[in-house]
This record gives sequence, structure tokens and C-alpha cells, in this order.
Amino acid sequence: MTKKIVIVGGVAGGASVAARVRRLDESAEVIMFEKGPHVSFSNCSLPYHLSGIVEDSEKLVLMSPKTFKNRYNIEARVHQEVVQINRDKKTITVKDLLTDSNYEESYDKLVLSPGASPIRPNLEGINNSNVFTVRNVVDIEKIHSYIKHNGVKDIAVIGGGFIGVEVAENLKLADYNVTLVEFANQVMAPFDYDMAQILHKEMVDHGVNLVLDDGLAKIDDGHIITNSGKQVDAQAVILAIGVRPETSLAKDAGLEIGETGSIKVDRNYVTSDKDIYAVGDAIEVYHRLLHKPTRLALAGPAQKQARAVADHIYGIPNRNIGVIGSSSIHLFDLNAASTGLNARTAEQAGMMHDYVYLMPGDKVGLMPNSNPMHFKLIFEYPTGRILGAQAIGKGNVDKRIDVIATMITMNGTLEDLKDLELTYSPMLGTAKDVVNHAALVGLNVLHGSYKEVKVSQVRELVENSAFIIDAREKNEYNDGHFNNAVNIPLSEFRQRLHEIPKDRPVYIHCRSGQRSYNMVMALQHLGYNNVNNISGSYLGVNLYEYFNDYVTGRDKIVTKYNFK
Amino acid sequence: MTKKIVIVGGVAGGASVAARVRRLDESAEVIMFEKGPHVSFSNCSLPYHLSGIVEDSEKLVLMSPKTFKNRYNIEARVHQEVVQINRDKKTITVKDLLTDSNYEESYDKLVLSPGASPIRPNLEGINNSNVFTVRNVVDIEKIHSYIKHNGVKDIAVIGGGFIGVEVAENLKLADYNVTLVEFANQVMAPFDYDMAQILHKEMVDHGVNLVLDDGLAKIDDGHIITNSGKQVDAQAVILAIGVRPETSLAKDAGLEIGETGSIKVDRNYVTSDKDIYAVGDAIEVYHRLLHKPTRLALAGPAQKQARAVADHIYGIPNRNIGVIGSSSIHLFDLNAASTGLNARTAEQAGMMHDYVYLMPGDKVGLMPNSNPMHFKLIFEYPTGRILGAQAIGKGNVDKRIDVIATMITMNGTLEDLKDLELTYSPMLGTAKDVVNHAALVGLNVLHGSYKEVKVSQVRELVENSAFIIDAREKNEYNDGHFNNAVNIPLSEFRQRLHEIPKDRPVYIHCRSGQRSYNMVMALQHLGYNNVNNISGSYLGVNLYEYFNDYVTGRDKIVTKYNFK
Repeated sequence: MTKKIVIVGGVAGGASVAARVRRLDESAEVIMFEKGPHVSFSNCSLPYHLSGIVEDSEKLVLMSPKTFKNRYNIEARVHQEVVQINRDKKTITVKDLLTDSNYEESYDKLVLSPGASPIRPNLEGINNSNVFTVRNVVDIEKIHSYIKHNGVKDIAVIGGGFIGVEVAENLKLADYNVTLVEFANQVMAPFDYDMAQILHKEMVDHGVNLVLDDGLAKIDDGHIITNSGKQVDAQAVILAIGVRPETSLAKDAGLEIGETGSIKVDRNYVTSDKDIYAVGDAIEVYHRLLHKPTRLALAGPAQKQARAVADHIYGIPNRNIGVIGSSSIHLFDLNAASTGLNARTAEQAGMMHDYVYLMPGDKVGLMPNSNPMHFKLIFEYPTGRILGAQAIGKGNVDKRIDVIATMITMNGTLEDLKDLELTYSPMLGTAKDVVNHAALVGLNVLHGSYKEVKVSQVRELVENSAFIIDAREKNEYNDGHFNNAVNIPLSEFRQRLHEIPKDRPVYIHCRSGQRSYNMVMALQHLGYNNVNNISGSYLGVNLYEYFNDYVTGRDKIVTKYNFK
Repeated sequence: MTKKIVIVGGVAGGASVAARVRRLDESAEVIMFEKGPHVSFSNCSLPYHLSGIVEDSEKLVLMSPKTFKNRYNIEARVHQEVVQINRDKKTITVKDLLTDSNYEESYDKLVLSPGASPIRPNLEGINNSNVFTVRNVVDIEKIHSYIKHNGVKDIAVIGGGFIGVEVAENLKLADYNVTLVEFANQVMAPFDYDMAQILHKEMVDHGVNLVLDDGLAKIDDGHIITNSGKQVDAQAVILAIGVRPETSLAKDAGLEIGETGSIKVDRNYVTSDKDIYAVGDAIEVYHRLLHKPTRLALAGPAQKQARAVADHIYGIPNRNIGVIGSSSIHLFDLNAASTGLNARTAEQAGMMHDYVYLMPGDKVGLMPNSNPMHFKLIFEYPTGRILGAQAIGKGNVDKRIDVIATMITMNGTLEDLKDLELTYSPMLGTAKDVVNHAALVGLNVLHGSYKEVKVSQVRELVENSAFIIDAREKNEYNDGHFNNAVNIPLSEFRQRLHEIPKDRPVYIHCRSGQRSYNMVMALQHLGYNNVNNISGSYLGVNLYEYFNDYVTGRDKIVTKYNFK
């Protein structure tokens, strides 16, 4: 008997279900409904049309309804909005947006992949014709055309998540004056505040006007007003505050909604109706580390869910291992990636944890384009189980985070990570990879081999005139150092022990932590009882403090910033 | 009581032992002996001096004896050759190469890190002044200076391992005429023959004269003669045939040598003398997948061994998980990486296995510099346990191989790999990463969802006029196709089923395997019983056949090569 599979939403999740169903069943009738004009477009590539990196917006559309028909015998009906599910009759009511008429379509199995819609706060000017959101190809074409043909020079992007940051970057690359307004004190929530500072610096260094801790209050003619009363020139406004899962269809049909506000599904992505599945940004998924439902609007998990749904329809068992949340972003000259929990989410979840922050070279220092990589590794205390990581740098950061994502999924510990045998050649890495290095530092912290202070604690130390040793060479010290720090290079300290007090805490740093680590260990062996390593060292603290000072105008704690 | 730790060899392994010892024990006396002029140089970066990528050869030296002394209070004695171990007295005899006099030095613990030396076959001309090997900074300076100041135009590199290939590449980048002679039928043993063909093509496309299946017979004035009688112009010859572990010191001292010919050590890198350790290229290590001792001359494992030795001296337990062999290389415009077993080594070891070969995009196709990645995944049959992988492409291949290396170490299966949640953004990857994709294809093969033929089997099919369907569109077909292949695009096959015979085997390919997979599944559902997918598809077979034809001049099996 021919199965009839009906799919609501024709982007990532929906199209993947359809294609997989066809591979499992040549005879099934598969119909995909999409209210917009396109199925299967490259969602995540939309912002790149604004800079011209993707010049032709038509290329964002990956497959036409005709190709779906020809290649997969799948019917993709565009401009068709599914307005109601009639569960008793196992039909849906569809509104043909071209003719404005309704019709019913029956299903054996219904798959909901409606996605999530951009949040539009209710405030003055929000419905002006120069206010946009970014969800699909039509949206991005509208923005592109508006700013090109209306003499727009200044653009405000509201929201510093993935879409906001990528839109801001691409507009900046196209030479607009861009202001990014973010309500929180940092952009990019997957990153901790200390790591986000590196992203902030990259944005301001590239000329983005970054307004944090502030929100959009009002949109006026030619400018916006923020909550704090700032007036910012903007002839166009792009809202990227966040998304809301599209649950209305499911809600109206009486399907269960989860505690996160998204559609509730079981381990096979079946909703509370056994003939209705749901996938993608509209559902809640199980977080493997937090042990509870969460929302996760990412393309990779959506594709996996889609496959699982098709398989389940055809009786193929599906393994559900939950999600951990892995993502990356390219931002001007930087790459940034993260996986699992950050320190903030671990803290919020009440999980016992600690972390290390280091900045080893991303490849052999002699090679062209070798750069430090900023790497933060979060692990469970006292087990050493790996919980998450963040990496930012010009080089191959996503490689390191993918290894950590793999470790998390395989329940790896710091001990496992230390022992990993990874690829190496001078142009591509270092013999002791960043992740091996991070594990070794992590084990030192886990085992209590020495004490550490975090980058966020250094300001207080400096302001309170703590005894800080700068273990770098004199020429490095002269090129910028912490106020009041004493310069005792690693290469001289054994002759200058008399300068180091035994009766008060000593804090040691160098450029990136390697030399200070050696000095900390030596001093401990020499009977110093209160020696502390400054995590993140000079480079890390500089990056941490730079943006704060830029924004707040606080006193610098260094004589000169040095990011090299 | 002060411990006296004496180390033979001051490069990767030796220097790492010394530094770690110092961190564990501020009072230990640590002496490192090196017969050359340098300790702690960047071994793996040596070839890059030949192209000028590392212009100043002094930069290859990472740390001077003076810095070792000042920073770590470690005595590094260069130009000092350890010529004998006197185990009964716990001393070594050292020859001062500057004064040519011998002296003894006592030890509490002795660590051998002598490395391995380049093999020099005994043949005519081998001792000519224009014949070189590559082991240290002095060697590479000698080559650089010789070829620069003696009007050298043509250089023969003998041996196609890491060093030979990197030396050939760097010499070619410096515009020399370079011939690479390799005894086996492929370069770079970590790769299977099918994958090595891609490296061969890269080398010949960049103008390297590649001579495979041949060896060096004789070095003459201005040229070399190969075993097959070829005469090749060469005013300089660089031997990179392989290395031999430096075991003479250990042997002479009566230390046990293992079955592989390297120094035998226990799990803590203790030799048969409890006060003597050995690390690095001179020892044999335990292979985690082959379950037996092996030799592995790589920097990463040497560093791990060094740390374990220092820890063991100080009573810190060491976990020994064995090695899997992970490595990478940058070659002209390509990156190549591998880990674990390849199909050849799995076969030789008698391990039941299968593999898949695919070439998905390394990032979203719309993004700049998006390219196919050639990926081969080897897994155990019937368990699906991951055994190894190889990846070659212009993009981020090492990322994918590091993920596989992690999976192997964590005993992952195809099922685990399929479920991995990795980072994604359009500039850095695809929502379904290459490794996820490979796992899905691997599971299809493991479960027998369809049958596959490998790239190496396609020639026979074509020559025997098998029924081959080219599932690409007509314009792609016209741009090069298999001789006698029938063009039935995926988009048309449902209307052209009458053209596909049911009474004989059918072989299907497209460009990269995506469309053929869909057609294979559909035909099976439609009652075709002998449908086969051509693994590697048109792109893979083209790359496989190209170099064979280039060398042998066999009949092409395609109307035109197409590598796009």
C-alpha cells in the first residue's frame, strides 16, 4: 500500500525528510508544502549575499520544485501555507497564497518542519518600511535591494547572535557604517564573556560600532534610539534579536508543547499524535550534558532528526544521543567555534566545573600565517570529564573544537584528551596539538598542581598592588606590562629569588603561560607556599580588558596593550 | 638527595624529558648530550628552508644551550657524542668532538633519545660530494648552500616518504628541476594506492618528474641511473629512502632490541635496564589497532613518551594507550592527512574490514574556495568499528582526520560517527560534515543496503563492456564519460526504465556518488536485483586512472578526464 507522507516546510529539515523517504520507498507519495517561493535554500549562507560573497541571490536556492520532482519524484508545492491540521480526518488545510483559496490534503504521516520566526518587538517604528528581518531568500533580497537603491549609508543591526553578527560583518564588508546593538553584555552567547571580548575587539577593529548592554527603544526617521537614550544614525534597521519557534499550527491542533515553548517530541521525533512528527528549529531536543530539554536552532541536528523521522516511518530503529550544541562562525579575520557547555551555562546548571584558558600556536611558529589560538576548555570537577570548549583565532579553530565535540560525545576525560594522537605537520599544526596542551594544563588544575587566577580576576590584583611577577624578558616587559608588575624573567629568577617574597601571595604571568608555568613549579619546589599562575597570561588579559576600557573608559591596568 | 638525569640526544624527545624533569624537580641535575651543534631544533620544518619559506636557517633552532641553562637550569652539551654506556658503573663515556677526547659522566637515570639515521645504500657514487641526507639543521644548510653555489639545476630526490616528498616540493617551489624516485608504486605509505594517486597527480601537475616502481642504481657525474636503466639529470642527489633507528649504543650496552629492530621498552619506556629509558624514533611502540610492536617516527608520540619518562622517574603513573599513527602533509595546493590503518595495512594484518571512498564538499558550495574533499574511511567488518581514514583536498582535511583519530582512540563505531554533532558555518564546513557523511555511506555498506565496486575495479568493467549508467546530466556526460557508459540522468531514469536491463548487472555512477546512490536505491525497490554503486564515482575514478595512464600509456577508459 502506497504511503502518503506530507511535509510542512521545505527548507533544511523538511527537504531532508522527503529525500530520505524517497530512498527508503520508491512508491511513497511525498508532498512538501512551503509558504514561501523557495524550497531547500541555504539558510546559513543568507548574510553572505549582503557583502557580495554570494553575489547572485538565486544561487542561495539549492533545488527547485522541478528538480525535486525530476530527481526524487517529490512534489514541492511553494506559495502554499498550511493553516490547519485536522487530526481527526488526518488532513491538513492548505491556503494557496497565489489564489487565496483553501484546500485539504490528506496524509498517512505528517511531518512538521516549520522552523522559527524572527522576533519583532512591539515598539515605535517597528513597522517602518526600512525595518527588516532575515529568514529567507526573499528577505535578504529585500534588504540588499533597499540599501542599494535608497542611498543608505548607516545601518543598525539589532541583536548579536549568529545572524546579527554575520549580517553586521557582511554589511561592513560592503562598506556600510554598521552599528550592532546587543542587549546582553556580550555578543555570541555560545562563548563566555572572556572569549567574547576577542570577538568584540575584532568587530571594533574592523569598524563596527558595537553597543552592548543596551537595546532598541525606538526607530525614528534616519536613526534609532536605544534604551539608554543613545541616538544612532540608521537609514535601515535589521532585527536579529532572536527567533521564536513556529508552534502555532501544532498548538492549534492540540499537540503538546514542551516546557521550553517548543513542540514536544519523543525520542523518535513523534509529537503527541503518533502520526505527526516534528523536526528542526520548532522542536525541543534533549541536551546530553544538561539532561533536560533544550532549544537548538542549528542545521546539523535538524538534518539528523529528518533522517531519523524517515527511518522511523519505515520501522528502522533510531539511536538518539541528544545534543551538545556545536557551532562556528567566521568573523572578519577570525574563526570562532564552540561546543558543549561554556563556563556560564555550566555555572547556571549548577555543575561542578573548572576551566583553563590558553593560547598556544595554531601551527609551528616558523610557518607562514602562524598565529596564537585562544582556547578555553571546560571540564567537570572532580571527574575531569570534558564538558565544552571554545576556540578563537585566525587559524584552524574548528578542527580543535570538533575534536572536543567528539570527545564529549564519547564521554572523554582530560586524561583521554591528553593522550590523543592527532595529525601534525608544520604547515598544519604543532606536534603537541592545542587540545593535548589544553588537557595537560587542565590536568594540572584538576590535580591542584598549582593555583590559578582567571583573567577576570587580574584587574583586582593590579588595583590592589598584589605582587605580580612578569616572567618575560626585559624587552617584552618594556613593550607593555601590568601596572606595578615586577619584571623577573624566567631566565633570571634563580639568581633573583631574594626579590620574591615568601610571606605574601605571588602571581606570575608571561606572554602566554608557558614560562610562568615553569616558574610557578620551581618556586613551589623551592618552598614558596602561595604562588599563583595567571591564566591567560599577558596576552589573554590584554584582550579581556581592551574592550571594557574601550567602552567604559576605566583606568587601564597595563602600561600599553600588546596583542602579539 | 639530588637526582642526576643524563639524556642522550637533545632534539624533540630528549629536550622534552629534560624540561619536564625540571618542572617536577627543581633540584635535579640534568645534562643533555648532543653530538651535533644544536639541541631542540624544528625537525619537521627542515625542508622548508629549501624553498625559503623558512629563510633564515638559524630560526630552525628553537633554543640554545644558553637558554636551556638560563630558563631551565639544564646543561645542554653540544658536540658531545655518547660512545658507550657503562651499565655496571652507571656511567657513560662521552667523546668531545671538538677536542677529540673522551670522558665519563655518571647517571642515576639515563634516557636514550638518539633518533634514527637516514639510510645510505651502498652503491656507486653514494659518497660523492653532491649526495646528501636530511637529518638536522647542518644537513639542510649544506644542501641549500651546495645547490645555490654550484649552478645546480636538476635535483634527484630518492624516496617518497614524508621527507622526500616535502624536500621535492620545497625544491620545486624554489624552481629547480626535481625528479622524485620511489621504489614502491606510490609515494606516502600512510595512504592507500587509490588516495596516493591524487598526490601523484598534484606532484606531476606542479612539474615534479615522478618515477615510481624504480630505485636508485648508481650516481654518475651530472645524472643518476635508476634500476630500470633510466638516466635522470641530477647535479645533486638527496637521499630520503628511510631511516634506521639508532640502536648501536643500546646494542653495545647489551640492552634488549625488539622484533622490529628498535630498542625494546616496557610500558613506561624503561629498557631492559631499569635505570635506562628510551624514547623517540629509536624505540618500538605498541600499536593499538594491530596489537603488536611497531616503529613510528613521529614527533607527537615522542613528546608523549618523553613526558611519561620524566613522570615515571618521579613515581607518577603513566597511562599507555599505544599508538595509532596520525600524520599530515601539505603538498603544493593540497593538504593530506591520515590516521589508523589504511586498507593495505588492514589487509596485511588479516583484519576483516571494508571501506568507503567519497568526495563531499569541504564547505558550503557557495562559499569562496569550496572544494571537494577526497575521503576514505576504513572500518572493521562486521562490527563497524572505525579503523582508519585518509583525506586529501585543498581545504581542512586534517580536521576530519583528527576527528577520526579521536574516534579510533575512543573505540568509536560508524554509528557513533554518524551521530557526531560537529561545528558548522558556511565558510568552515557543511551541516552534514564529511565524516558524518562517510559514516552514513559506511553504514550502508556495512548493512549491505547496496553493493559497491571500488575505483580500482572500474577499468575491468569498462573494458568488458559492463552496463554502466552515468546518472549525471547530459552536459556533464558530454564533458567526459566512461567509454560505453549509457547516460541516463537521475532526473530522467523513471521515464527510461525500459532502457535498463534486469537480466544483467548494472553499475551506476554520477559525479561524486550522491545521485547514483539515489538511483541505486530506487532501482532496488523497483525489483532490480543486481545493481551496483561505483564507489568514488566519476571524479574518483578519473583521479585513480589519470596517473596510471600518464605513466603507462594504457588506453584511457574515459573519453576525457574531468577533475571538477
